[in-house]
Amino acid sequence: MLKKHTINVMDIYEESKKLHRLKKGKISTIARDHLDTREKLSLYYTPGMGGVATEASGGREALKPYSWINNNLAVISDGTAVLGLGDLGPYGAMPVMEGKAMIFKEFANIDAVPIVLNVHSTDEIINVVKAIAPSFGAINLEDIAAPKCFEIEERLKNELDIPVMHDDQHGTAVVVLSALINAMKVSGEKLSDMKITIVGAGAAGVAVAKLIYEYAKPEIIAVDSKGIINSTRTDLNTEKKLLLSFSNQSVTGSLKDAIKGSNIFIGLSRGDLLTASDIKTMADRPIIFAMANPIPEIMPDEAKNAGALIVATGRSDFPNQINNVLAFPGIFRGALDNEVQKITDEHKIAAAEVIAGLIEHPTAEEIIPSVLDKRLVPAIAKVIK
Amino acid sequence: MLKKHTINVMDIYEESKKLHRLKKGKISTIARDHLDTREKLSLYYTPGMGGVATEASGGREALKPYSWINNNLAVISDGTAVLGLGDLGPYGAMPVMEGKAMIFKEFANIDAVPIVLNVHSTDEIINVVKAIAPSFGAINLEDIAAPKCFEIEERLKNELDIPVMHDDQHGTAVVVLSALINAMKVSGEKLSDMKITIVGAGAAGVAVAKLIYEYAKPEIIAVDSKGIINSTRTDLNTEKKLLLSFSNQSVTGSLKDAIKGSNIFIGLSRGDLLTASDIKTMADRPIIFAMANPIPEIMPDEAKNAGALIVATGRSDFPNQINNVLAFPGIFRGALDNEVQKITDEHKIAAAEVIAGLIEHPTAEEIIPSVLDKRLVPAIAKVIK
Repeated sequence: MLKKHTINVMDIYEESKKLHRLKKGKISTIARDHLDTREKLSLYYTPGMGGVATEASGGREALKPYSWINNNLAVISDGTAVLGLGDLGPYGAMPVMEGKAMIFKEFANIDAVPIVLNVHSTDEIINVVKAIAPSFGAINLEDIAAPKCFEIEERLKNELDIPVMHDDQHGTAVVVLSALINAMKVSGEKLSDMKITIVGAGAAGVAVAKLIYEYAKPEIIAVDSKGIINSTRTDLNTEKKLLLSFSNQSVTGSLKDAIKGSNIFIGLSRGDLLTASDIKTMADRPIIFAMANPIPEIMPDEAKNAGALIVATGRSDFPNQINNVLAFPGIFRGALDNEVQKITDEHKIAAAEVIAGLIEHPTAEEIIPSVLDKRLVPAIAKVIK
Repeated sequence: MLKKHTINVMDIYEESKKLHRLKKGKISTIARDHLDTREKLSLYYTPGMGGVATEASGGREALKPYSWINNNLAVISDGTAVLGLGDLGPYGAMPVMEGKAMIFKEFANIDAVPIVLNVHSTDEIINVVKAIAPSFGAINLEDIAAPKCFEIEERLKNELDIPVMHDDQHGTAVVVLSALINAMKVSGEKLSDMKITIVGAGAAGVAVAKLIYEYAKPEIIAVDSKGIINSTRTDLNTEKKLLLSFSNQSVTGSLKDAIKGSNIFIGLSRGDLLTASDIKTMADRPIIFAMANPIPEIMPDEAKNAGALIVATGRSDFPNQINNVLAFPGIFRGALDNEVQKITDEHKIAAAEVIAGLIEHPTAEEIIPSVLDKRLVPAIAKVIK
């Protein structure tokens, strides 16, 4: 099973490389007017620019009406946690950030600039982002390793006057919550009654746990590579410790111990982690979100055969693709349009509800909209205000 | 005289502001392909991106074939010396940097990203530029105050593996040299025999002096706001001291003392600095480059009436507009096309000669090409190799 899927991914890798070499990149700039006369040059550059520059020197709000900062943002990464591939550094991160910039343009008409960083400490990253922040209307942090990503985002949110969002955390959390909202409609259960095992306690896992708890206060067990996170563990970072304030405190053991009797499995970890017999130890008709990429924690057919009611993955070739693309273009479109300074939990929950609401009659095979659904961005943008 | 021209500029300022508010900025991004199918999304984003990202993690050369960095650059300023207006800060600088980005696109098809910085010390600026450098194929520094601009450029040139050029210095120097080359053809003189007064010893003045000396070793007197720069002065910064190694050492006094008997006046200072009677103290048929913006050091008609053979300004409404736009698009086009790592004095001189060469028969009214001359970029790019 693994081998077959690995080979498919390798084919996609090669095709993707070929397409990238052909296009020589995924984004470009364009001028909003042509500089074909001396008059235009004098209005867009010298000497005309003197008037605009003087007025814009009043600050961000003074600059906005004259500059692309009213519609742009930076997609920023230091490359320490690129996709599921790990620390690929700034050059390895660039194609992913350029991909996000392409998506921002195509899906939400946002002028996004990919910025990859050659510095990696928390303070250095914060200082660089703050230094370049006047150039942008918002900051999308991306693929920065946990746990430093938490402090970096938190401090930047406090210290900057523009929206800052680490998409690996909150984009994922929004989309998972929206899928859970509709999964509950399909199963006829209440999220607050559920026992949920979340595997993977990096950026995404922690944010998913927080947002789900904020929304419905279900029973949550978080599991990392060392096993179940509980209060006897002495190896927990600040964010994992924070999980203990609202998730399992006392249950110990491995993943297998955690999922026994769980209603919902949320995997943000690595491929081929779960077996059919694991699924059978869960509560009846469990809900499985196996989001590891490119190989899910368990393949959908295997999970279904073992009794799962609903299966979602991160992949486009199975039903129920849980992908941040569903959320981030609309969230930032709304933040820019409505001049939102901070993206809050209320915004994220509102976005999750809007995404879920786009499916009128959820079924096991359709709990979330297609990533290509054109209703997503305007609907989400409206509630980020 | 001053009043009339001031009013004209104010009209241009208002018209420029109106146009900017209408366009809401001067550049945008575009996607190089449409993301209208799941397949394209899987090739340009996940999971296809995994293959590209892994390969690109090998470093800049590995990334280049897959990324817009093969055709992009950053236009970076901390806003401490915006146009002739002074320290307007990052927000005030943004419209000018966006203007340069627009010119880069329209004139040289380069994807330029304006980055304005909220930090101002030499070390901070260097650190930020180095941190974001993997995101770009070249760095155009702009409107950073002297003398820190010299050290910033020098260190970045040494510490980065991509071309770095402070355009206020070298773009200006290249264009002034090209104008001088043709001015000599008109006057029938040799640049090496000339006595040249350069007024303004900031970024542009220092670079102009250096490049002209490198090219022809004429007699140079540099003047700053305190008077003639000479070896008795105790208030000189490092760069001004460096001027003494190849310019006047012993002549003291004011601007008026400097230009007495000079063949060439190069003004990079402030408007209305020079009078007709000053011109009359110069050598016969002097050459006057009065480049202060928006008001030249002396108006062209006044200089002509006082005996000037050739007058050039920075303005588009007089003959012989000396503007960096003539040089920087072609220089960076060449640097990117030919994968040049450092832009050297040889490159700058070659560019100046190419620009001058585009005027087949120079006259007093036409020593340099129009900024709209489409031959400029390809001709310059060819010699930056």
